[in-house]
Amino acid sequence: MNIVCIGSGNVGWHLASHLAEADFTIRQIVSRTTDHARRLGQLVNAPFTTNMAEIVNNADIYLYAVPDDQLATIIAQNPVKTGIHCHTSGSLPKELFAGKVENYGIFYPLQTFSKQKQIDFQNIPILLEANNKSTLKALHKLAAHLSSQILETNFEQRQQLHLAAVFACNFSNSLFTIADKILKEVNLPFDLLLPLIRETVEKVSLLKPEAAQTGPAARNDINVIAHHLSLLEVNPRLQTLYRIMTEIIQAQ
Amino acid sequence: MNIVCIGSGNVGWHLASHLAEADFTIRQIVSRTTDHARRLGQLVNAPFTTNMAEIVNNADIYLYAVPDDQLATIIAQNPVKTGIHCHTSGSLPKELFAGKVENYGIFYPLQTFSKQKQIDFQNIPILLEANNKSTLKALHKLAAHLSSQILETNFEQRQQLHLAAVFACNFSNSLFTIADKILKEVNLPFDLLLPLIRETVEKVSLLKPEAAQTGPAARNDINVIAHHLSLLEVNPRLQTLYRIMTEIIQAQ
Repeated sequence: MNIVCIGSGNVGWHLASHLAEADFTIRQIVSRTTDHARRLGQLVNAPFTTNMAEIVNNADIYLYAVPDDQLATIIAQNPVKTGIHCHTSGSLPKELFAGKVENYGIFYPLQTFSKQKQIDFQNIPILLEANNKSTLKALHKLAAHLSSQILETNFEQRQQLHLAAVFACNFSNSLFTIADKILKEVNLPFDLLLPLIRETVEKVSLLKPEAAQTGPAARNDINVIAHHLSLLEVNPRLQTLYRIMTEIIQAQ
Repeated sequence: MNIVCIGSGNVGWHLASHLAEADFTIRQIVSRTTDHARRLGQLVNAPFTTNMAEIVNNADIYLYAVPDDQLATIIAQNPVKTGIHCHTSGSLPKELFAGKVENYGIFYPLQTFSKQKQIDFQNIPILLEANNKSTLKALHKLAAHLSSQILETNFEQRQQLHLAAVFACNFSNSLFTIADKILKEVNLPFDLLLPLIRETVEKVSLLKPEAAQTGPAARNDINVIAHHLSLLEVNPRLQTLYRIMTEIIQAQ
């Protein structure tokens, strides 16, 4: 199978490079960002274009890893109707392709990708959907070369998984940024929190997160909660966040 | 050095058992919860009492690992004035002991403790404070047998570290619980998120959390954000949380 990769952002970058490593032929990198397209093309030994009109014919798979708000436009710009067309969005239906191409689906890797950080694909869940069996089979084959965790899901499941991922990953990371800033105020390094953060994650690998909950809110330690709210008085948004998280923990 | 451990909750449990493993003599477990006190006493090979009036004399260290809102009362109940008295709270000053005993301080391990989960103390930061040099030295010696990460901090730093820990650990864990519930609605297991959660943490070991931020808020993907808010319409509190976290990420 040979693949045209459309998009050279974080997801496109990691997918193209891991597919190339898995010995798939990357036929072309398509991206409107010339610099990213060129560099990713070099990395996966493929030509690149910034022009959707120049997209190559007869690839087996057209893999769209582009921002959600650009996906419909980019699909409409692709003159090629053959092959399997799939996108990597957690929130959009496969039906964006309906009526435009014959074989289409979803290839959604559930992970947080940053270009600066290498990643092991082996345990990353890849969620698949397709509009027919042969397409599903082909996407399965593609996924199986990257990961051992392949799931056929429906749209509702994928949306909820994406939403859950935003809470579990994006929002957690933002909490780490908040913690970093709180420590900076007293000249302490963020690294001090790493053993705590690692243990928090280790615990939810063994216990249900509900059972792993600790801290002032879980203990209903009113004095500590009031004290923390007073420390946050200088930052009303963080104070509101603290209050809501405390309420949520107490209701959980 | 021999130690009287006051409190048999999560923190007291792990401290007493690791101190015993590090070959310190636990002279006595003091806890108002008979069952916990008995079991912890058995574990560390020490007698127990539920009565502060029966606390043993002449221990080197009296270690208070009790809820913040009970600490002042329990200190007042301790008839013993000799030895070093220290507490494990992240939020309360060492001066709770002032005027009551001669040598006192803080022994605060920065970690999330659950009785169901064993823990490696070696990398856990232990924060120390003391009212004089000899007490600080003794607490240092105690800490050095448990961990290689010992810090002398002041009250302001300890408070901020505790506040940061609540964001980074307690609130993150609550986000994991939210994610778990979101997945349950579509019959998907929480474990699917573990590779994502692990990678989120691995990333902040290498990059600053600010640089590691991904997701719809960081990309300002308005459609996805609106879509997620609509999925959360059934749960106004989570919707508010989503909105605030999105604002915070966009301001970070």
